[in-house]
Amino acid sequence: MAVSIVVLAGGVGGSRFVLGVREAARRRWPSDGPSGTSARIAVVANTGDDLWLTGVRLQPDVDSLLYALAGVNDVERGWGRAGDSERVADELRAWGAGWPWFTLGDLDLGTHLARTGWLREGRTVSEVVERLAARWPLGVRLLPMTDAEVDTHVLTASGRMHFQEWWTLHRASLPAIAFENAGIAAAAPGAGVLEAIAEADAVLVAPSNPVVSIGPILSVPGIAEAVAAAPGGVAGVSPIIGGAVVRGMADACLATLGVPTSADAVGLRYGARGGLGAYDRAALPGLLDAWLVAEEDAALAAGLEAARLPTAVRPLWMRDLDSSAALAAAALDAALG
Amino acid sequence: MAVSIVVLAGGVGGSRFVLGVREAARRRWPSDGPSGTSARIAVVANTGDDLWLTGVRLQPDVDSLLYALAGVNDVERGWGRAGDSERVADELRAWGAGWPWFTLGDLDLGTHLARTGWLREGRTVSEVVERLAARWPLGVRLLPMTDAEVDTHVLTASGRMHFQEWWTLHRASLPAIAFENAGIAAAAPGAGVLEAIAEADAVLVAPSNPVVSIGPILSVPGIAEAVAAAPGGVAGVSPIIGGAVVRGMADACLATLGVPTSADAVGLRYGARGGLGAYDRAALPGLLDAWLVAEEDAALAAGLEAARLPTAVRPLWMRDLDSSAALAAAALDAALG
Repeated sequence: MAVSIVVLAGGVGGSRFVLGVREAARRRWPSDGPSGTSARIAVVANTGDDLWLTGVRLQPDVDSLLYALAGVNDVERGWGRAGDSERVADELRAWGAGWPWFTLGDLDLGTHLARTGWLREGRTVSEVVERLAARWPLGVRLLPMTDAEVDTHVLTASGRMHFQEWWTLHRASLPAIAFENAGIAAAAPGAGVLEAIAEADAVLVAPSNPVVSIGPILSVPGIAEAVAAAPGGVAGVSPIIGGAVVRGMADACLATLGVPTSADAVGLRYGARGGLGAYDRAALPGLLDAWLVAEEDAALAAGLEAARLPTAVRPLWMRDLDSSAALAAAALDAALG
Repeated sequence: MAVSIVVLAGGVGGSRFVLGVREAARRRWPSDGPSGTSARIAVVANTGDDLWLTGVRLQPDVDSLLYALAGVNDVERGWGRAGDSERVADELRAWGAGWPWFTLGDLDLGTHLARTGWLREGRTVSEVVERLAARWPLGVRLLPMTDAEVDTHVLTASGRMHFQEWWTLHRASLPAIAFENAGIAAAAPGAGVLEAIAEADAVLVAPSNPVVSIGPILSVPGIAEAVAAAPGGVAGVSPIIGGAVVRGMADACLATLGVPTSADAVGLRYGARGGLGAYDRAALPGLLDAWLVAEEDAALAAGLEAARLPTAVRPLWMRDLDSSAALAAAALDAALG
């Protein structure tokens, strides 16, 4: 029976980890098929950072995963399509429309327009993502966390704004009072999400932003419960190394919740299976069978173990495909036991 | 008191005529202001060929007028923006989204996205067009015929399709049974349209497609009535020269209505003021004080005069700005009396 793997992931950091998982699976369970592995990999993607902009639907995390898996991402820049241009975006600036500080590549806009057209035709987000993913042989199934629009908004002293405005325009510099995903309590998991978790031999939590990437995924009713009840093992990878974020501005997000920027605090928020977590709502089931922290954080392991969270100290830096695959292999080892 | 002029116009042919009107006004009533003329010119634009495509709102006739008046149109090709590219459109083809046969330029898409964003924010079509028109000193006011969505559909033996599909994909080759603008009977004229007509010294009907360009404008309840009751003179220019269309496929449209492709038939459909017309619905007021036909159609003048439609024989070919301005001057002469 083929191994089945589920990854919960955000965008850029999540993409790097997912590429590592695919590569690790190809090495450990090779096959001649188009995916290069007999393992079945499903990625549950954050859609909390989705947005409407100039009438068009953007899904930054879904697209980051899609482009990275397809090998058409801009590796230098770290996001968007390789070789992209901004003719349309320059026009939008000339019109005074949209957000001049928010980059919209021309190739990227093709994706947004295709998606928007299909959504306007009445297709669900899950159907649209499946259709987008069909363009290239990704080797993984890409599953949006929900079909509902639950765009993250940030409450600040200056008012309530879309997450992208807080993140990209203000570089997370405005103190955030709260992150909100209106309607998420009534949202249902995307098509196939619960089924994938229920049949997974390993569930991996990518080293994505725990508050605004993994947080929304776990806040969709049913997903955290499914992970906590999963038949397979669950391993998470710390996005914090040596008390600092690897990329992005997760520290600002954690501070909002009163959580220290440290690998142990984030691990304990996810919580050990059988215990409790604190990643979202009240009455939270702990999620993890194993928590991977960096060698820089080896000193935290004893405390985590004392708090009954099994902890593995591993190299966490994903510098290239090899190191990403090694990290993913370590996470798989931890989850598969 | 400054002269006030209203032009009813479609896209490409309408644009050429409107440029002629602006130029004729600059020559006859020059001023130092940004428009170059003391005359106030309002263009009532057809919105019947508007469409939604991949979730984005297109207004081909409005944009043709806008780009031509701004001097950013592609003169060689006859439509779209000069120097445009199709990076996004190529992507849409790769996605299998939208209409592969329908050209979407990148610069053009900037307009569509700005418009779509503003519409989705709740602005009316009139407000959006006013905002688009503010980018350049056009020297005329551009008024959409209505804020309502009344996209033209074509009924054929192969089914009902959007006008653009019939026109651009099928090149008007499928026999049309009828042209429909659902909801137009309940549509209201765009902001300022009736006021502009009511204060006009001259109302000009451009040599645009009488069925699918001028037809929808006159089918918005109130507009034909306002023209028929206008205090100023009304002059129309034949889009048919020597029994053939000047551009486009108006002959296919006229055939659908059982109207011969001839300058006299089109003029009599608009009808003489005080008499009756046949351009749209029952109980139609005649519109024209004067009808301009080409020198090639001089033989038709006597019959038109006998039918009580005052007719002027003039050179109708708009080969360049000078000939367009001369035609517009002749139309103004006919309307101003």
